[in-house]
Amino acid sequence: MTPQAQAPILEALLACRARGVAPFYAPGHKGSPLRDLEGKLPLEAAVFELDLPELPEFDSLHDPQGPIQAAQQLAAELYGAAQTWFLVNGSTCGVQAMILAVCKPGDTILVPRNAHRSVAAGLILADAVPVYLEPQVWQTQGLVLGVSAQSVAEALATHPQARGVLLVSPSYDGISCDLAQIAEVVHDHGLPLLVDEAHGAHFGFHPDLPPLALASGADLVVQSTHKTLSALSQASMLHLGQGGRVQPGRVAQALRLLQTTSPSSVLLASLDLARRQLALQGKQLMQETLNLAAQARSWKLDRLQILAPQHLPAGYQLDPTRLCVLLSDLALTGFDADDWLREQFGVVAELPSLRQLVFILSLGNTQTHLERLKAGLVALEEFPKSQIQNAPLPAPPTSPPLRLSPRQAYFAPAVAVPLETAIGAISAELLCPYPPGIPIVMPGEEITAEIVDYLHLLKMSPGCTISGAADPQLRTIRVVQLS
Amino acid sequence: MTPQAQAPILEALLACRARGVAPFYAPGHKGSPLRDLEGKLPLEAAVFELDLPELPEFDSLHDPQGPIQAAQQLAAELYGAAQTWFLVNGSTCGVQAMILAVCKPGDTILVPRNAHRSVAAGLILADAVPVYLEPQVWQTQGLVLGVSAQSVAEALATHPQARGVLLVSPSYDGISCDLAQIAEVVHDHGLPLLVDEAHGAHFGFHPDLPPLALASGADLVVQSTHKTLSALSQASMLHLGQGGRVQPGRVAQALRLLQTTSPSSVLLASLDLARRQLALQGKQLMQETLNLAAQARSWKLDRLQILAPQHLPAGYQLDPTRLCVLLSDLALTGFDADDWLREQFGVVAELPSLRQLVFILSLGNTQTHLERLKAGLVALEEFPKSQIQNAPLPAPPTSPPLRLSPRQAYFAPAVAVPLETAIGAISAELLCPYPPGIPIVMPGEEITAEIVDYLHLLKMSPGCTISGAADPQLRTIRVVQLS
Repeated sequence: MTPQAQAPILEALLACRARGVAPFYAPGHKGSPLRDLEGKLPLEAAVFELDLPELPEFDSLHDPQGPIQAAQQLAAELYGAAQTWFLVNGSTCGVQAMILAVCKPGDTILVPRNAHRSVAAGLILADAVPVYLEPQVWQTQGLVLGVSAQSVAEALATHPQARGVLLVSPSYDGISCDLAQIAEVVHDHGLPLLVDEAHGAHFGFHPDLPPLALASGADLVVQSTHKTLSALSQASMLHLGQGGRVQPGRVAQALRLLQTTSPSSVLLASLDLARRQLALQGKQLMQETLNLAAQARSWKLDRLQILAPQHLPAGYQLDPTRLCVLLSDLALTGFDADDWLREQFGVVAELPSLRQLVFILSLGNTQTHLERLKAGLVALEEFPKSQIQNAPLPAPPTSPPLRLSPRQAYFAPAVAVPLETAIGAISAELLCPYPPGIPIVMPGEEITAEIVDYLHLLKMSPGCTISGAADPQLRTIRVVQLS
Repeated sequence: MTPQAQAPILEALLACRARGVAPFYAPGHKGSPLRDLEGKLPLEAAVFELDLPELPEFDSLHDPQGPIQAAQQLAAELYGAAQTWFLVNGSTCGVQAMILAVCKPGDTILVPRNAHRSVAAGLILADAVPVYLEPQVWQTQGLVLGVSAQSVAEALATHPQARGVLLVSPSYDGISCDLAQIAEVVHDHGLPLLVDEAHGAHFGFHPDLPPLALASGADLVVQSTHKTLSALSQASMLHLGQGGRVQPGRVAQALRLLQTTSPSSVLLASLDLARRQLALQGKQLMQETLNLAAQARSWKLDRLQILAPQHLPAGYQLDPTRLCVLLSDLALTGFDADDWLREQFGVVAELPSLRQLVFILSLGNTQTHLERLKAGLVALEEFPKSQIQNAPLPAPPTSPPLRLSPRQAYFAPAVAVPLETAIGAISAELLCPYPPGIPIVMPGEEITAEIVDYLHLLKMSPGCTISGAADPQLRTIRVVQLS
């Protein structure tokens, strides 16, 4: 058989499906297809037949005047948005469009230090200059909580030239900031609040869930409809708030730069169907998911803990459907626990880290999935108790000075140098230790002696990984080559 | 029934499908699904189940080390590329990545005046400065032919600071430039040749088709695998040539900016399956498509002509599968003919213009489709003969001076002013009359008196449309507001 007879991607996907795991990851549909009102499966039945171009009978994503416009309008009404854009290039392009809509080259924007990498990409594309907000960290667990209203107020006082504030809420772990209070602070400065709500598309559709960022006054909000609802992967939404602080024309113009001119009608239809499902059955589906989550929270676990609202300091809210399992008392890392659960129980988490495992519960999960999770966690408790003290992580170095904008650093020639000789150079890469997932150096920032010392310390910490580096062993680091 | 029970996008797609038209548009699969080696329909059967995230068992698009890497490697081998990247944000992001990989801010790049709007977007994102290559035009038909090797050589002589040359080949109408000769000219200057081959993913897989841009020596090539082959919409490929003139790291870095971090595994699988189909059955499928095209070219038509190789001047090649029907002798425009064919015969073209209709024939078309096309065209011939002379279009104005880079113009504040008062101002928009589809003014260019005169002339020409303007009546034009 010729090698060309292989189809590695399909074969891998079929193998994943054949394993029949209990899925606690995104996409939220977990393989359960979207149905029409008669219970039929239009997308499953005819993906290729429904994969149509921007015919006059259909519509154009970049200049919608027909069904796409109508579908976006229905989504806007459901979410309480002034306007909604459907996205086919993921929340990534929504985050980038938010930055491009608010910043001209050289403009300052406040962004959290623990932002998703799409924020760094947006800064590079717009040539915006970041002022980083340091999120609060729960040191013992190595968990990022989020940004407080006070830190936003302080940053705005020191950086009156800022054009807007971008936040991530909720976090991967399901922790939301006090967006209503933050929105007040930001709006008092006459600025727009932009929220990466990728993990919160289901918020507000049940009284036990945190409120939507839009309801808290946010001006632009991106949601991964595929992450906690039923849309297909890379199908997202961008909502405009009611405050009139952002020009919708600037958003549409940015999205024209960032999205294909051949959008998939199937991805768009999945957004439309996910919106309808949420509108017609949202509360009931959320209730079922919340019931599963409440069950999990009622399990009698000795050595494992599931993150609960009472663990969090005031000002932070927890998405009850997000199960963040704290492994502090066990003598194995989250990475090892993740491998073990997958291999032994076919239970797949969304995100392992050193001391936690995050499980996404969504409307696609079932009682069977939950029982497998319980069996896995109960067995995990048999692992020996940790012998090492759960010492708090060493305090991270202070944020270094920004010497080049992220865009300047992106385009600058770079060279790899030994870590020891990098002190004083400008980093060409982002280095982000997990836990807690806050970059200690971003492209364009100076590599200080304190940072090099901290990196040496991290390299010796078992289970700590550093993401973003071209050399994963971190013997070398890429720095900007100044001519 | 609540309005939220509607699903406008799905309903529109189902209605399109129910009409059962003869499709002569992209995507190339024309609704015919990709099968596995046993003839089964894995994607149709389980779109949601196969929509999986970047699990460890699967792979990561931005850092592929497993099945995605293997699939890209098979595609590279099939196309003769040094490396291939699968794209889930359409050829749009591939064109942008080509520009970002070759240009730093302020760098000059040669681009054809008739480029797709993704090129303008790429110039904006990279802050590259375009030098426009004027394509040759067949004035009587209002058809753009392409860029000649001579005009590339002249432009490179006058602009030695250029960092690369980007071309579109083939055109929408199926016309290819002499890429081998152009590549020689470009390589003699030590520069890379970038080719937007969106409409030529099927080239080179049959001796009667034009050669692939890669085979002609191109250094980076984007192909819309969904346009003439069987991938799903917005699934494309970017190939690196063998010349070593572009750093693959720069390409990968750009694609990380431009593509979602939640890529659809279904889109990726469709690229993998389309590649396998082409490898195993390509020549036979191309033969069948060529047979359909040959049939169409043998029809006895009196007033309609199908563009044929002998119509083209030396140096240009025609994709025989692309049927560009010339309406010169009929008293109706291509737009009217398009509507009429769609309504009366359910025959849907890819692209109507004033004096042509372009039909895409691909491996998804059948004998039945072709017979409906024949019936439609034969009936179209009954329309009265044109009473107006087919006067050549007025010669377009010379390209105006570039006063701001496209990026500067994108971010500049803009205001709408009456056309008459715009002389001397800097355009904030692209104005592109069809035919022939070559912009007469681009963002950042000066609006000259000659351009305003020409726009007045176009406004009085029946059937001429001007795309890109915020005011489609062109009473006003958006210009940069200089502070």
